[in-house]
Amino acid sequence: MVTEVSGIEQTATPSAPPGRRAGGRAARVARRGDRNSFPPPARFRRRVPTFELLDEEGLARLEAQADWILKEIGVEFRGDAEALRLFKAAGATVKGERVRFESGQARALCATAPRSFRMEGRDPASAITLGGDHIVLMPAYGPPFVTDLEGGRRYATLQDFRNFVKLAYATPWLNHSGGTVCEPVDIPVNKRHLDMVYAHLRYSTKPFMGAVTAPARAEDSIAMARLVFGEDYLEDHCVIQGNINVNSPLVFDETMSGALRAYAAANQSVVVSPFILGGAMGPVTQPALLAQSHAEAMAGIALSQLVRRGAPVVYGSFLTTMNLKTGAPTFGTPEASLSTFAIAQLCRRLGLPLRCGGHLTASKVADGQAMQESVASMMAGVLAGSNFLFHAAGWLEGGLTMGYEKFVMDLDHCGMMLRMLEGLTLDDNALAAEAYREAGPGGNYLGSAHTLANFEAANFDSALADTASYEQWDEAGRQDLERRAHRRWREMLAAYEAPPLDPAIDEALLDFMAREKAATPDQWH
Amino acid sequence: MVTEVSGIEQTATPSAPPGRRAGGRAARVARRGDRNSFPPPARFRRRVPTFELLDEEGLARLEAQADWILKEIGVEFRGDAEALRLFKAAGATVKGERVRFESGQARALCATAPRSFRMEGRDPASAITLGGDHIVLMPAYGPPFVTDLEGGRRYATLQDFRNFVKLAYATPWLNHSGGTVCEPVDIPVNKRHLDMVYAHLRYSTKPFMGAVTAPARAEDSIAMARLVFGEDYLEDHCVIQGNINVNSPLVFDETMSGALRAYAAANQSVVVSPFILGGAMGPVTQPALLAQSHAEAMAGIALSQLVRRGAPVVYGSFLTTMNLKTGAPTFGTPEASLSTFAIAQLCRRLGLPLRCGGHLTASKVADGQAMQESVASMMAGVLAGSNFLFHAAGWLEGGLTMGYEKFVMDLDHCGMMLRMLEGLTLDDNALAAEAYREAGPGGNYLGSAHTLANFEAANFDSALADTASYEQWDEAGRQDLERRAHRRWREMLAAYEAPPLDPAIDEALLDFMAREKAATPDQWH
Repeated sequence: MVTEVSGIEQTATPSAPPGRRAGGRAARVARRGDRNSFPPPARFRRRVPTFELLDEEGLARLEAQADWILKEIGVEFRGDAEALRLFKAAGATVKGERVRFESGQARALCATAPRSFRMEGRDPASAITLGGDHIVLMPAYGPPFVTDLEGGRRYATLQDFRNFVKLAYATPWLNHSGGTVCEPVDIPVNKRHLDMVYAHLRYSTKPFMGAVTAPARAEDSIAMARLVFGEDYLEDHCVIQGNINVNSPLVFDETMSGALRAYAAANQSVVVSPFILGGAMGPVTQPALLAQSHAEAMAGIALSQLVRRGAPVVYGSFLTTMNLKTGAPTFGTPEASLSTFAIAQLCRRLGLPLRCGGHLTASKVADGQAMQESVASMMAGVLAGSNFLFHAAGWLEGGLTMGYEKFVMDLDHCGMMLRMLEGLTLDDNALAAEAYREAGPGGNYLGSAHTLANFEAANFDSALADTASYEQWDEAGRQDLERRAHRRWREMLAAYEAPPLDPAIDEALLDFMAREKAATPDQWH
Repeated sequence: MVTEVSGIEQTATPSAPPGRRAGGRAARVARRGDRNSFPPPARFRRRVPTFELLDEEGLARLEAQADWILKEIGVEFRGDAEALRLFKAAGATVKGERVRFESGQARALCATAPRSFRMEGRDPASAITLGGDHIVLMPAYGPPFVTDLEGGRRYATLQDFRNFVKLAYATPWLNHSGGTVCEPVDIPVNKRHLDMVYAHLRYSTKPFMGAVTAPARAEDSIAMARLVFGEDYLEDHCVIQGNINVNSPLVFDETMSGALRAYAAANQSVVVSPFILGGAMGPVTQPALLAQSHAEAMAGIALSQLVRRGAPVVYGSFLTTMNLKTGAPTFGTPEASLSTFAIAQLCRRLGLPLRCGGHLTASKVADGQAMQESVASMMAGVLAGSNFLFHAAGWLEGGLTMGYEKFVMDLDHCGMMLRMLEGLTLDDNALAAEAYREAGPGGNYLGSAHTLANFEAANFDSALADTASYEQWDEAGRQDLERRAHRRWREMLAAYEAPPLDPAIDEALLDFMAREKAATPDQWH
């Protein structure tokens, strides 16, 4: 397997204080990390319209159905007395653990959340904005397995976790380091969050996610962020995020609502993500899922605002389908794409940053099925108007496996999507009247002055696509995309250089981790 | 290789006369040909909006630039005195072979073309409409090579041609039999059009394309169609089509304009398809290509209307990119998607049926690259509002190769796109209020009455996607999509049954071919 470039890491130089951290070297490293040129921040912006699937009447009907669910069925916050207390104080109807809202009440509670917010990285150049016309792309989240062409599928380790953080740092096409990029199952369950947060802080400068598997682990994650960014800095800067999966249908368990409260209380961002496979965690018809997902997201976002008015949130969604003969989840399906388009419209009417889409697939390998499903899912999310694309790289097997080859294949398509979002510039240069005067009918434009002046910036340059002739491809060993991707991620990892980190901060992080780890016995499940 | 089911073909029963041909058996065969249920005609309709990339100002600027090209640069019709005569008589400025149009003149000449038109198949159930909210999907056009997992890449033969006609007939996801689905290079160049037209007429009932490689071959194609549909039937029914590739930039050669005139004179449809790789047959910037493509399409469509006012036409386009370091064509690129969105808007403003999109790729094999590029290209075409998708199945290697596995992989995605175009139905059943009353928060919807009542029709059922568990997939031989597709096309071909054809018509066709073939010596280039 891959050798870490640990010698280079040890040469790390002290970083600048928060707000003035040195970005130059990291940016240069990132540039070298990919053969595509590093995109200026503007390349993570949407310059094209969104795809509007439903009309006003359809959207109003879904909103009314979401209100009906919140009023007639309600949402359960299980085992979280504080959440129930907050909802009751805000005027919701609380019976046992069931919370019901009058029509429009949950929506009104969401209104204090910011329309967009900035998230700081450990380097000023790594800051992102969530919301508006900004686009944030992050790796897959959660897989317990990894796979690559040589090693095959196996349980993920901390070494794999670090590799994916490094790959995400090295590419220009992701601007978020992710959260649980894979589960480091070689580390005890109750301690691995420390190693994960450390890896994001140590091996990357990009914004990242902390633990949500227990409120105390969320607190640990926030504490480590404070060691790096400064105790007070978090009060008015978002530097860490928690992804709160709703226990759909219509349930938040105490783990998730507790983690949500921890992040919101610290003024850090939560992403509220209903997770619905139609036919299991909700009805089999997509319109029902849309109303349900909207209801669940509003309930979670409302809680974040009751914990701390103005806390930054992202309106999440994860709506997909099942094979209804076997119960297996399916991805990149036409029904999932339609739901993606519609949920984005519902979110826009709330005026919040939107999470949907991603390179999703049920395939076990990085084959044609993987890319068919992934591209369909990603294009739907991008055209729908997603601000935040989870699982933008690496996802295989319905999220059970993180693929090394899939990771770089997806990266290439992320670059393409970002280029597409730039749209077309209709200026005199682009219309090229002079080129027609020069070449005329039947002419060849390859050598024209206009082509020479424009060819470098004209087209996205794929790092992986093979466009050679059949004969060249044959002579070069008939490599398919998966094989070329295998070489690519190894090259990227070998070229990785860690961004600098103040040794005093590093020591503080390692101290914190050692103390936390020593304080409790290992738990393995 | 595959054995033809020739015994079954010989049992063909007489067909009903034009307009009342027996559709029942063919429809049943088609149903058996795919595990997905045969879609009613409504499933080839668009029920979702189009994606509108450019605003009014941008579109007006592109139209003005197209007008500028037509006026200042002009279009050459080389070697076609009749075309030049027609343009001159219509008031265009003709100097030598160069035709120039005043602003708006070409657009005005296009105005007599129908907004949509019906194309008859050899069976009433196979009729299609081009234009409006109708969608027509046809196989790849033109590849001289074929490939499959066992036989590898080789020159295509008539046997391959017949196989692809049969596969296109057997699937519910294509409603057009295509034209040169592959080049039968084992048949002389000057005679193979006869065998191709015969194969479409004999082994399918779906609408098809005839020859365009010489005006005389176009006439032969039309003559064969008359033998099947009746001499007079073609006067007011469209049954055959010619695809007219423009010799971009801004040139129509006599072969293409002659074939165009032959089809238009017979009141049969032409598709006018500018074929532009940015940087070679036009400038490297997409906005220029859009204006150029629009100008070329209008010039060709204008000619069709001068030949016969009201002749059915399709506004075609084939806009893609090149790898500007090597000159190799590239597909499914973000620039190509943007151009697809924009050209569709320009066509809608002319009010004509639109051809764009398709499952395009530069990949040599049906791997992840093939599906990444193909799905991006197809989704762009579908969301752009394409009425007619060439190359919807089988395209590999930039159109040089027709892939058996790729063909069925693409078919599956055609089915998905057709499902997506159906959109969402927001009725009480889809909103499923009762299901929430039944299952409530935390419930499982798998067993709910609503799920049981809806699960069969809820989701598109892929014929190829593997959604089994890793363990099941592992035990079943770890087959990737390409391997599963290999089994699939062989099963489809083995199950193929030819639609009935009146033996007298069959004999007339074979007679015609024999006479034509005997009349001239073989030409091999």
